[in-house]
Amino acid sequence: MTSPLAAPSDSLAVGQRSLGDPDVRFPLWPPLTEGCPVTSTESVAYPVEVDYAYDKVPADLFATAAARPRGHERWAPLLPPLHAPGLAEGGTPLLPLADGVWIKDESRNPTWSHKDRLNRITVSAAVGAGAAGVVVASSGNHGASAAAYAARAGLRCAVVTSAEVPPAVDAFLRGYGAAVLPVPAEQRWPLLRRIVERTGYHPVSNLTPAAHTGHGFGPEGYKTLAYEIFTDLGTVPRAVFVPTGYGEMLFGLWKGFAELVRLGHAEAVPRLYGCEPAAGGPLAAAVRDGVPAAHVPLGPTAAYAIACPVGGYRGVVALRESEGGAVLVTDAELAAARAELAHSGVWAELSAAAGLAGLRQLGRPEEGPVVCVSTSSGFKDQDLLAAGPSAAVDPEDWDAVERRLRRA
Amino acid sequence: MTSPLAAPSDSLAVGQRSLGDPDVRFPLWPPLTEGCPVTSTESVAYPVEVDYAYDKVPADLFATAAARPRGHERWAPLLPPLHAPGLAEGGTPLLPLADGVWIKDESRNPTWSHKDRLNRITVSAAVGAGAAGVVVASSGNHGASAAAYAARAGLRCAVVTSAEVPPAVDAFLRGYGAAVLPVPAEQRWPLLRRIVERTGYHPVSNLTPAAHTGHGFGPEGYKTLAYEIFTDLGTVPRAVFVPTGYGEMLFGLWKGFAELVRLGHAEAVPRLYGCEPAAGGPLAAAVRDGVPAAHVPLGPTAAYAIACPVGGYRGVVALRESEGGAVLVTDAELAAARAELAHSGVWAELSAAAGLAGLRQLGRPEEGPVVCVSTSSGFKDQDLLAAGPSAAVDPEDWDAVERRLRRA
Repeated sequence: MTSPLAAPSDSLAVGQRSLGDPDVRFPLWPPLTEGCPVTSTESVAYPVEVDYAYDKVPADLFATAAARPRGHERWAPLLPPLHAPGLAEGGTPLLPLADGVWIKDESRNPTWSHKDRLNRITVSAAVGAGAAGVVVASSGNHGASAAAYAARAGLRCAVVTSAEVPPAVDAFLRGYGAAVLPVPAEQRWPLLRRIVERTGYHPVSNLTPAAHTGHGFGPEGYKTLAYEIFTDLGTVPRAVFVPTGYGEMLFGLWKGFAELVRLGHAEAVPRLYGCEPAAGGPLAAAVRDGVPAAHVPLGPTAAYAIACPVGGYRGVVALRESEGGAVLVTDAELAAARAELAHSGVWAELSAAAGLAGLRQLGRPEEGPVVCVSTSSGFKDQDLLAAGPSAAVDPEDWDAVERRLRRA
Repeated sequence: MTSPLAAPSDSLAVGQRSLGDPDVRFPLWPPLTEGCPVTSTESVAYPVEVDYAYDKVPADLFATAAARPRGHERWAPLLPPLHAPGLAEGGTPLLPLADGVWIKDESRNPTWSHKDRLNRITVSAAVGAGAAGVVVASSGNHGASAAAYAARAGLRCAVVTSAEVPPAVDAFLRGYGAAVLPVPAEQRWPLLRRIVERTGYHPVSNLTPAAHTGHGFGPEGYKTLAYEIFTDLGTVPRAVFVPTGYGEMLFGLWKGFAELVRLGHAEAVPRLYGCEPAAGGPLAAAVRDGVPAAHVPLGPTAAYAIACPVGGYRGVVALRESEGGAVLVTDAELAAARAELAHSGVWAELSAAAGLAGLRQLGRPEEGPVVCVSTSSGFKDQDLLAAGPSAAVDPEDWDAVERRLRRA
């Protein structure tokens, strides 16, 4: 009997490196959770990334013929060490829409969002660092995912939320046994820091106010999206449209494709498009103003999972190096894309539809496959219960039944 | 570029056969949706099943080395024709718990439950039969899954629900554009029949009051659970514990394992255990009384997805032929099993924990791997929002924060 999960962790990670200056290097441990301590200033914060012994990557790592383990074990050489047990994260399907457009359905992950790709990595870092628990500031998918991986690893988990957390998501967080701490929005990061300092819990979300730097290891988990898209399509797509909050997934996609080029498997990185709610758009502002990260006013939007007033340098790197761009999508465009997905059998969260909304706004490139990432399920939406329950219908009144059938 | 979904449908299905008398045979089309018209009487209803040209099954169908399409296409020879487009159903992971116990996590399906394995098949039957829509009586996973596959196939979908449908599930059904028709519980099946008769919509749930017969093709989709468990473990497990309502999944598991034996890939069928809420238990009653199907009084239980007052002959066949048994689990046992799953990183619906609850009640067989099927996610639970939102905490009051951290 072979375990589909129990491949050994044979990571080729060799150290951490600043995105502000790639010559500034650090050892692999401890994981840097506040960005680069050398290149960052009070006004600009640069993240770090993980470097690997690329010359030792097995030549057949991307071959599809062999039976492979599931989950991040599949890509262990190009990931940080997998100290925490997995839940068979990733390996999500690429579903065809019409005209060469593909949906990468990330709702098929262990906690039904893309965040599992990151949290397998960050909770592994917490285990590797000997922490007793993890702490995360999140009102959604990130927190639930961290809670699930912490539970499986036998670590405690604290989730600092705001009062606006949707009720179903609140129950979701508690479902895994996490300590849920709703506080006023502006108090979330100070409390996160206090918990880190007083308990030694490992932070798996951002700690830096000047710009998003997040966990140095986490975005490596998103590289697997690029690896899977490449092996499923048998080629690199023309473009990838990505729902974008802090830009961690966008960066992971870029880095994964760039590694495929570096290792000689692909010719070029696809154009990456970071799709943000028009109510904010810090990445669009950073690109427009030519700065590493921007702060923007944040207006009302129901796309709470990707509504950010501050961005980070990772997204800028991904768009610049891939020759892609930032796309601002309105809530109406998001709702139309969500409806298009549902019509194809994919019930997505409003924020999850941002990739397809961005594609529909820009229009399809003339040739080659295009991938839109859909990040999570409709269960996470803030307006899930807003319409109230379906009205009862009198089964004896056929006209009423027929009207209901026609209306749908 | 190759599509991960677009394998041709090369079904070896040759006809339908009565479970009441295997010598009573019918052509493959039209699909029989009210059980066997020959052997059923007013008091006993027998389902039909699908027969195949087993001598033509490719010898390497169960080999794991080759790259394979995803979804039901992977097993097309042993399924009814796949006329409806897929969503990469199935292929869910087998997650290890301690001591040789494995969780088959069905929440990783397209609509996050096992029902997608059935509905790809039943909606394909509707497409093959030329129907304009499908109709289903369901207050949960079955309805949402039918709605998703109908949407993808361009068919209309009507879901007859009761007033007790959980609010999140109601939104879920409407998310795919289905017509939702809440009616008093006792009116659900009469209205379902009326819609079938007046609109020609294809019924994808049960129509027979004497016992559950359901759709003749549907349970074939559950056979893929057995195929996947076999190929992932590299062997047949000792036992499989299955959340059981009408016994369709139980039957599909038995038939899939029996086919593996018939085709020479496995030595024996594992013991199958049908795990029902103790508040009802029609399968346990049928086994106890030696009848093809039983009606029982149904007491209160929160395991609404598998709470049935009437059973069907499929479950009896599965338990008898596998030398397994029926297990009645209390809501307290279900809640304990749900907590054990959450502790391992799997947030399951209460009903979904019935398999693990059954195993914990009976105790583990002395040797060999054991599989518990977990059918769906915690988002579907009726009591999802019952506890109310998490209370706010004062971030300045460290003692209060610490108490919250300790309590989780």
